[in-house]
Amino acid sequence: MPMRCKFCERSAFIKLHYPKMYLCEEHFTEYFERKVKRTIERYKMLRPDERVLVVVSGGKDSAVTAHVLKKLGYDIECLHINLGIGEYSEKSEEYAKRQCEALGVPLHVVRVKELLGKGIGEVRTRRPTCSYCGLTKRYIFNKFAYDNGFDAVATGHNLDDEASFIFSNLMHWNTQYLAKQGPVTPGEFNGKLVKKVKPLYELTEREVVAYALANGIEYHIEECPHAVGATTIEYKEILNEMEEKRPGTKMNFVKGYLRKKHLFEAELERAELRECRVCGMPSSGEVCSFCRFWRLEEPLELMIKQR
Amino acid sequence: MPMRCKFCERSAFIKLHYPKMYLCEEHFTEYFERKVKRTIERYKMLRPDERVLVVVSGGKDSAVTAHVLKKLGYDIECLHINLGIGEYSEKSEEYAKRQCEALGVPLHVVRVKELLGKGIGEVRTRRPTCSYCGLTKRYIFNKFAYDNGFDAVATGHNLDDEASFIFSNLMHWNTQYLAKQGPVTPGEFNGKLVKKVKPLYELTEREVVAYALANGIEYHIEECPHAVGATTIEYKEILNEMEEKRPGTKMNFVKGYLRKKHLFEAELERAELRECRVCGMPSSGEVCSFCRFWRLEEPLELMIKQR
Ligand SMILES: [Zn+2]
Ligand SMILES: [Zn+2]
Ligand SMILES: [Zn+2]
Ligand SMILES: [Zn+2]
Repeated sequence: MPMRCKFCERSAFIKLHYPKMYLCEEHFTEYFERKVKRTIERYKMLRPDERVLVVVSGGKDSAVTAHVLKKLGYDIECLHINLGIGEYSEKSEEYAKRQCEALGVPLHVVRVKELLGKGIGEVRTRRPTCSYCGLTKRYIFNKFAYDNGFDAVATGHNLDDEASFIFSNLMHWNTQYLAKQGPVTPGEFNGKLVKKVKPLYELTEREVVAYALANGIEYHIEECPHAVGATTIEYKEILNEMEEKRPGTKMNFVKGYLRKKHLFEAELERAELRECRVCGMPSSGEVCSFCRFWRLEEPLELMIKQR
Repeated sequence: MPMRCKFCERSAFIKLHYPKMYLCEEHFTEYFERKVKRTIERYKMLRPDERVLVVVSGGKDSAVTAHVLKKLGYDIECLHINLGIGEYSEKSEEYAKRQCEALGVPLHVVRVKELLGKGIGEVRTRRPTCSYCGLTKRYIFNKFAYDNGFDAVATGHNLDDEASFIFSNLMHWNTQYLAKQGPVTPGEFNGKLVKKVKPLYELTEREVVAYALANGIEYHIEECPHAVGATTIEYKEILNEMEEKRPGTKMNFVKGYLRKKHLFEAELERAELRECRVCGMPSSGEVCSFCRFWRLEEPLELMIKQR
């Protein structure tokens, strides 16, 4: 017997576990968007007049983020960073383009290989690939937002991402990371560190996938080849097992963390930031870790060219 | 092909994963006892001249604790608390007696039902059974140790117990519990809170079982009927899965916790302790939680009677 939607006569499209209810496509979409709206309000992520840069990877999370923000009436533009990881990056860029076209939102593309000479994975370094990839992406989307006057950067992190991040850093007791994580990172350093927000903070991966499906959002499914075997996936599975036995586990875990985060902040030494000699962006040393890693001698140019 | 012991020609009795090595029964026993000895030294648990009360439940962990402490030359006596949980408690007491006889160590038995009128599980209360059972056991072994002049109480907690305790309290963000846990709890309040030590703190459950087997230690296997479905077991399984993929996970997790424990201590309000009006033991209120729960009007009498 097919279950019916909690709010109408249609048959159910999805069964939510926490809170437990059956919803049709339309009411699920409504539920999802209202939840994003409330998340934005609860954590004071965005004001209605702010210009928001959504970082779109080609994957589901960022595509859904852009989709919902647009639908909620925010003034958004998108940025795709092509990492230069062969076929994977080409496909990702293609999907990001399709997503933004379908949504009718401007898309800016930055290609790491064109900009820095080498793609992610092509640099000879002892640093792990995922580590300098993260550094590079964070620097580029922040500087892009700063150079072009955006008020905030939105990323697609969902509840599962957050829960597994916290879980992983607890398992390894990387408490400094736990001090800095959260749904909103306020702007700092005269706006040179642009505010970061995560509108899907309280939505599960499963819900995000369902939203994409219900709203015809196409996305690139393949995992980055460098992330293969990452423990994140293992931790997500563990959390999913726990969630299945006790619905609400992930949400309560993340909310509990937010309540206790101050304990980790106590340990944090406020690094004195100064301007990077090369790019002028905030840095703990004379040259920032991005300019140092990529051996830059001039600042990266990320201003949008007038078309 | 049977593997050989790392240290002799005999075939292996056990494969340890962290550090990875094969050992015969004899060399495993030697390894295990040395590790307990080093644990006691590292955490400054016991001095050679101290009188130690080992709380024996009839299970493997406490039996092994008593066995190794005796072998290492400590001055020990044992205490069994019969919880009055029907068949389960009768069996447990029987095993505790056999263990102490085999070891040639004095055993004292305290029976909750005789002492307090009701067994665990028979009290009408809204408090969960495992919660007041824990309260009752902790009070009795502490007061027994105090009344009879012991310098320390040793319990059988092993690495798996500690790891799952920390894991569980992190998942639920019960950070006050995390502030108080550890291999040693020093004596306090003029010795009325007797020092507690966990000599098996760095030994895994699997190693404890193997030690019992190698040394002919019989023990009661049945779980307490009130603990059925306890999440502890689920958390132990999760930790075992992680351990299997990355040997050393549990040990590193627990050691990382000990390094960061001070973060949780920051939150702890030092409760002003005073003497319980009924029993004189340390209490945060006028009457201690034990005397309050059991509605005592006179202190519990736990002095060992001269035989
Ligand atoms: Zn409906
Ligand atoms: Zn720089
Ligand atoms: Zn051997
Ligand atoms: Zn009392």
